[in-house]
Amino acid sequence: MTEAVVAKDGHPFDEAVALDPVAEGVHTGHTHPAYTNMVGPFGGVTAAVLMRAVLADPRLLGEVLSLTVNYAAAVAEGPFEVTATPVRTNRSTQHWTVALTQGGAPVTTATVVTGLRRPTWSDSEAPMPAVPRADDVPVRPMPDFVAWARNYEMRYLEGPLPDADTGAHADSTTTLWVREQPSRTLDVPALAALCDVFYPRILRRKGTFVPAGTVSLTTYFHAPAETVRAQGNRPLLGTAKAGVFGGGYFDQSARLWSADGDLLASSHQLVYFKE
Amino acid sequence: MTEAVVAKDGHPFDEAVALDPVAEGVHTGHTHPAYTNMVGPFGGVTAAVLMRAVLADPRLLGEVLSLTVNYAAAVAEGPFEVTATPVRTNRSTQHWTVALTQGGAPVTTATVVTGLRRPTWSDSEAPMPAVPRADDVPVRPMPDFVAWARNYEMRYLEGPLPDADTGAHADSTTTLWVREQPSRTLDVPALAALCDVFYPRILRRKGTFVPAGTVSLTTYFHAPAETVRAQGNRPLLGTAKAGVFGGGYFDQSARLWSADGDLLASSHQLVYFKE
Repeated sequence: MTEAVVAKDGHPFDEAVALDPVAEGVHTGHTHPAYTNMVGPFGGVTAAVLMRAVLADPRLLGEVLSLTVNYAAAVAEGPFEVTATPVRTNRSTQHWTVALTQGGAPVTTATVVTGLRRPTWSDSEAPMPAVPRADDVPVRPMPDFVAWARNYEMRYLEGPLPDADTGAHADSTTTLWVREQPSRTLDVPALAALCDVFYPRILRRKGTFVPAGTVSLTTYFHAPAETVRAQGNRPLLGTAKAGVFGGGYFDQSARLWSADGDLLASSHQLVYFKE
Repeated sequence: MTEAVVAKDGHPFDEAVALDPVAEGVHTGHTHPAYTNMVGPFGGVTAAVLMRAVLADPRLLGEVLSLTVNYAAAVAEGPFEVTATPVRTNRSTQHWTVALTQGGAPVTTATVVTGLRRPTWSDSEAPMPAVPRADDVPVRPMPDFVAWARNYEMRYLEGPLPDADTGAHADSTTTLWVREQPSRTLDVPALAALCDVFYPRILRRKGTFVPAGTVSLTTYFHAPAETVRAQGNRPLLGTAKAGVFGGGYFDQSARLWSADGDLLASSHQLVYFKE
């Protein structure tokens, strides 16, 4: 039996992803009012909760390499149960299936690949864009009705959330400096959540509010947990852009770099929209 | 009980993805010698098999929007069982978990999101690159020891598979025209397989052979099945590029456009490599 994963320092993120062990592979948790979104909680925090169920499991091999979360339904305010199953353990990788249920009904499903990292040749074809320093970019708060966004300090370099006066835009790119608020030492679950801070790209294109929600989210984690922690509470540089829109769906991809210029995560999602 | 999904016209692809129903949500299949890779079958054909288990299920709602396949172990030559479970069915989307087992042991896991497409505003931020017509580009066969590649006609515009004389290269991009060989009318499972025809990007960078294999693959399907079929047997334009390499893993992303210039699929994968 693993120890309870409890809030470390009272930070809302640690509270939101806190899990209590119930049985092997089973934890309970509770939605957190600080991470409420339009419908259900912020998808990033749900992704982090599912990942934590794996990280808290004593059967875990290695670090999280890949996470796919499928948002089957909105998580209702209240308690939930997370079941994590290591379906296959190899010498250097381990494959997990994870499900978040409420009242016995599946609400979110996930697969997680964990594994050992070995020293190898390394190189990046995704260098950090040249941008002004975070300190030189003003913080722009999200509107008050988006509760979860208050937990993130966002400094937009391009593509801020549109307001009533914003027109349509031909390119969906948003680039920003972002960190948790209040500031907090980065860890891999927080990084998983940060991959989802980019508002739906359809809003940028339309220059107005459009109902939209993530259907499926996949994130690849490129850096060891130690490198992630070494980021401390410094802002990350993130950028997100859509691929194609049509039939009620679009895809968007995001990258997050550390303040030191390391690509920490690449994230892709399929998003549902209505118009 | 659904009808057996059998080979339509004796094409090796149809034979490789043929499934026999055993019980609700359970099919059996068999590896096909024409799709053998270095270790186990071509990952693309395994992805297509898992998708077909969903498409063959009478409980199916809509079309495949998103597919994530986790390659937990090499599929051994021989029979396998595929179990597909619709864990949640909403008004317009449906969430599936799928597992391929051999001798009761999980070998490959997947999640699939299916759903209805609705007429909406559409636009692409991923236009097809301007390239010479397929007819003007020579076919370049893969080496003989890669059995599966004989099923694909590849016309490289950049980044062909390196051989003994190829040096390291600073950029991992491969762009090619590709279609099934012998030619065959495109369908969504074949498209899923085609997303994985790009050899591992580490080979392009190193200019030599490096053991590598997909750990997790996610593909988003942007076009209705009807648009996919309308492609007929014309070549698709595909391009693939890596993100970052390190710790024994890298990510690569690919896009496939129809001959008419429609983006049919976006695909991302995390790949293990050894050096």
